[in-house]
Amino acid sequence: MTPANHFSALDAARALEAGTLTSEALVRACLDRIAERNNDVLAFTAFDADTALHHARLADRSAAAPLRGIPFAVKDVIDTADYPTAYGSPIYAGHRPHIDAACVATARERGAVVLGKVATSEFATQSPSQTRNPLNLGHTPGGSSSGSAAAVADFMVPVAFGTQTTASIVRPASYCGVVGYKPTFGFIGVAGLKPLSPMQDTIGLLTRTVADAAFFSFGLHGARITSQTDIRPRLAVCESRQWSHARPEMAQAIEQLAADAQRQGARVQRITLPADIEDLVDLQARLFAFEARQSLACERANNSSQFSERLQKRLDGGIGITPREYLDMRRRAALARVKVQALFADVDALLYPPAEGEADIGLADSGSPRFGALWSLLHLPCISLPVTKGPAGLPLGVQAIGAYGDDERLLAVAAFLNRVAAVR
Amino acid sequence: MTPANHFSALDAARALEAGTLTSEALVRACLDRIAERNNDVLAFTAFDADTALHHARLADRSAAAPLRGIPFAVKDVIDTADYPTAYGSPIYAGHRPHIDAACVATARERGAVVLGKVATSEFATQSPSQTRNPLNLGHTPGGSSSGSAAAVADFMVPVAFGTQTTASIVRPASYCGVVGYKPTFGFIGVAGLKPLSPMQDTIGLLTRTVADAAFFSFGLHGARITSQTDIRPRLAVCESRQWSHARPEMAQAIEQLAADAQRQGARVQRITLPADIEDLVDLQARLFAFEARQSLACERANNSSQFSERLQKRLDGGIGITPREYLDMRRRAALARVKVQALFADVDALLYPPAEGEADIGLADSGSPRFGALWSLLHLPCISLPVTKGPAGLPLGVQAIGAYGDDERLLAVAAFLNRVAAVR
Repeated sequence: MTPANHFSALDAARALEAGTLTSEALVRACLDRIAERNNDVLAFTAFDADTALHHARLADRSAAAPLRGIPFAVKDVIDTADYPTAYGSPIYAGHRPHIDAACVATARERGAVVLGKVATSEFATQSPSQTRNPLNLGHTPGGSSSGSAAAVADFMVPVAFGTQTTASIVRPASYCGVVGYKPTFGFIGVAGLKPLSPMQDTIGLLTRTVADAAFFSFGLHGARITSQTDIRPRLAVCESRQWSHARPEMAQAIEQLAADAQRQGARVQRITLPADIEDLVDLQARLFAFEARQSLACERANNSSQFSERLQKRLDGGIGITPREYLDMRRRAALARVKVQALFADVDALLYPPAEGEADIGLADSGSPRFGALWSLLHLPCISLPVTKGPAGLPLGVQAIGAYGDDERLLAVAAFLNRVAAVR
Repeated sequence: MTPANHFSALDAARALEAGTLTSEALVRACLDRIAERNNDVLAFTAFDADTALHHARLADRSAAAPLRGIPFAVKDVIDTADYPTAYGSPIYAGHRPHIDAACVATARERGAVVLGKVATSEFATQSPSQTRNPLNLGHTPGGSSSGSAAAVADFMVPVAFGTQTTASIVRPASYCGVVGYKPTFGFIGVAGLKPLSPMQDTIGLLTRTVADAAFFSFGLHGARITSQTDIRPRLAVCESRQWSHARPEMAQAIEQLAADAQRQGARVQRITLPADIEDLVDLQARLFAFEARQSLACERANNSSQFSERLQKRLDGGIGITPREYLDMRRRAALARVKVQALFADVDALLYPPAEGEADIGLADSGSPRFGALWSLLHLPCISLPVTKGPAGLPLGVQAIGAYGDDERLLAVAAFLNRVAAVR
């Protein structure tokens, strides 16, 4: 019999509904897995078995609710009242927020159970956490949602909140062989998220299945979406200059998935990203630097000696940017968000790398975020799903990108792609 | 001689630079005014003379900085570490945030001095604070930035941070006879602002002069903008169905200003707001309800008995909105933001009412936000400036709305309009 901690959230919800599983048993299985593995993986930064089990037992006795009894983990840049929230920085060691973030409170309102906090890089920037890739402990899990991806991949929890400002959900998802869903900007409310680049910061989910990403994200809003089974998606392999940084196995994984999808009924075309859209990659980084410098103004004033050199350098990158340039960048981004809609005129999703390739060896660097930057800036929904393995035996994901606000269609396309990759 | 608390921020900065004024003397003059008037006006909710004077003396000894020595007040939905921050709700009575919000820390970094906290309505929604209109204590100062507008109007402080999600800066500015500047969405970083409707929440400024709004907002970013003196702005009186709610004196104030502006060299045309843009007013309210319900999820779960009935009702308005409808609203808003740019093809600013008319008598209602909703949703920079008085002897403002990201041009147009209104 499958151990409960291997259940997808959706399967667990069905078993809970049928009475063949209790939330207490599910949470206990997750806690057992954490006890067994967390000393190696270092995904969870804070958890409390008694608190989690208490809430699981309450869920077992409570009325039906969309996410009743489902345990989830919370990236440590998102506030929780029951657990310390350190934002990945020594400045906030032991910090305890006074309330839960909106996404945590909403998940609780829908019946879900907080399992604990999972590691983030420093303020969700590039200085990595201690988390290791559960598939090979010598490799990075990616970042900044490192704990979220590793915990889900290692069967410690079925769902974790992550956040993405550049590529912080799709990259760790690809590296750890799980699903990473960055919704349309703002779909999951940001109250209680430590802001970094507020015009780009997006809360999303790490899960093991596409269906779980749909189930939990829409379940947060009290809805259940039914996955279409007869979809014949219109896909476009979206080439760009960035692809020169993708390793051959990554390009190969995308081509293979596209070919398989076509055999399964998808229509596949190839497009080249217009140069003026691609140029926005640089703008994303400058916008980030300007905003992050502001967002961390209080810490810069009082605690900058506790910043990593890397963060300090990143924030210094915002010094020379004038308010006029910032507003001009914002205007260009707003125009590009509309212009990019043309790409989706007869396309349901673009296929794109989520990362350069497999997770690299070593923990000092969490990999390049280059393949997420553009889509984060453009506020588009993105999902990375595992499709194959690379030469080091670690996962390779593919990123599907949908039209603004059309998360439901993107999730349906991703479910199709998941099936294509599975039957291969 | 003009008392120091009557100085504009810009005049004070010049006097500080010239050595004819100290920040200590300026802050002391403001504190004296608070001591004299705050028991009646109830604008400040927290201040501490020793702390403010200490920081003023530090500023007097510090090196040149864009906002050196200038006191400012902070709307109480914005976090401050030195002062309690109650978000206008009994739930947070005595709450003390652990750090300053980004805008406060940035202002301090530029040399400005926090004078204290000023009242907000409940979570910046419609249940009013106790603040009174300093021009007639029996009348509302407007909301939700009630304390910000009243404190500035009453010469307690030259500058106050306010916030706007619907009309919470432009309306109180009009009612209190001061300048209210809501920048392009996101121009002033939102880290440390209590989120309400994060896709619309905007931090802005209340000041007594247009030049101060420009000086302080760009000064925050380390820049100084020079006001153009030879501008001949292209204006458009922007009519809409909403105008049927404007009182005759408000419509008259706009027509008069437009006529005077034309005589002073402006080009003035009339346009009618396209119906599909105007229809977004309803969308703004629904988007607000959906997002505010999420943002306050933790308080809804634990403290809803301390919500006002009015807030509870407003949040209940979000219950029936599905995630699909929400995403669809977001998509419509994104498209409208680009479509509305056409209005600015040969127009520098639209003229529009900031409120229905003068401030009403009584404190139970802070007035209708209808004239701000659309521009907040569209993320456009807006500025309300006082132009005349109404039949009750209270101020009437006019709202000027600029193109997305072109705050500098809007501020120049507003400076022109200010001059036009002054020489009349």
